Amino acid sequence: MKLYMNRASPFARKVRIAVRELGLTGRVQEADTAVSPVAANETLGRDNPLVKIPTLVTDEGDTLYDSRVICEYCDGLNRKSRLFPAAGPQRIAALRRQALADGALDAAVLCRYELALRPEALRWPDWIAGQKAKVFGVLDLLEAETGRFGEEFNIGQIGAACVCGYLDFRFPDWNWRSGRPQLAAWFERISRRPSVAETTPP
Amino acid sequence: MKLYMNRASPFARKVRIAVRELGLTGRVQEADTAVSPVAANETLGRDNPLVKIPTLVTDEGDTLYDSRVICEYCDGLNRKSRLFPAAGPQRIAALRRQALADGALDAAVLCRYELALRPEALRWPDWIAGQKAKVFGVLDLLEAETGRFGEEFNIGQIGAACVCGYLDFRFPDWNWRSGRPQLAAWFERISRRPSVAETTPP
Repeated sequence: MKLYMNRASPFARKVRIAVRELGLTGRVQEADTAVSPVAANETLGRDNPLVKIPTLVTDEGDTLYDSRVICEYCDGLNRKSRLFPAAGPQRIAALRRQALADGALDAAVLCRYELALRPEALRWPDWIAGQKAKVFGVLDLLEAETGRFGEEFNIGQIGAACVCGYLDFRFPDWNWRSGRPQLAAWFERISRRPSVAETTPP
Repeated sequence: MKLYMNRASPFARKVRIAVRELGLTGRVQEADTAVSPVAANETLGRDNPLVKIPTLVTDEGDTLYDSRVICEYCDGLNRKSRLFPAAGPQRIAALRRQALADGALDAAVLCRYELALRPEALRWPDWIAGQKAKVFGVLDLLEAETGRFGEEFNIGQIGAACVCGYLDFRFPDWNWRSGRPQLAAWFERISRRPSVAETTPP
């Protein structure tokens, strides 16, 4: 299988962590791919009209996106699901936490585009403040939920780890750990997991 | 259950169509909710730190987001899933199509924010062009896939219908039907379905 990815993308990292947790590294070729919301990428665009990473081309030639779909597909390749609980309340709880993390990542990536991609004269402080407030709201909820994580590392925790890692990478000045000791301690512990350590942004 | 929604939101529409397809209208109270990425909504923010609609508060008091998670939850309330195929290739195909549609909606909503919310002096034509290209790429792929839809109306087709409806609502000048006769004919037919007709934007 071919995975369009790059090391800076937090959504690609979700998939790369999942692939490692599931023991699928030998079956997935990671293809470094540059994407930008204001520039075409014809190679990737032929497979995914959204021109986003991660995108997975399966051994059957099917093209899958986005990170949620690819992670669920990969989980289904093993006999027993490990990252997505079976139907029922535990599954919905994991999916809700994944959506929470994805929402924070969407907001953080929009901040990044605003601050690093958009011409300086066209930046809008209200937009940055609004997106940043979403990220911090999510961090506060994760801080409250971390105590219930235990040893669980399903798609919800993978998403949470990618949020923490992305903020360390792109927004170290936001000091996300401040006032969130439980989340900070959890992320420190989980960062030693090989799947997380190997996929740390550059 | 309480559903934070408004009639203009294409993601809320996905849930509202799902609720109707599943015969759950009697169990869901639709609460009209104004949201903006640059303004707080304290009521909604208490339930969902992303401050986005749709958000569902279940009868058990759990709060669910985003549209994908709520639709899957609602589908699971019936004895037999109808909108999300069971595990396997058909499920992944439906989820991939939902992700395709969601991606187009994300891009279209970002265009809307840029053109209707951001102060005019801060708008960036390259951003609009890039997001619009994603939407049209998705429309072209849907045009190619429509012939295989048949009578199927799962979460993938629900997403596709919400894309078409949102473009009619917010971007009629984009003429999405032009050069896409199959998608246009499918959307005309599907628009007569009560779940779709009742949820048409204002």
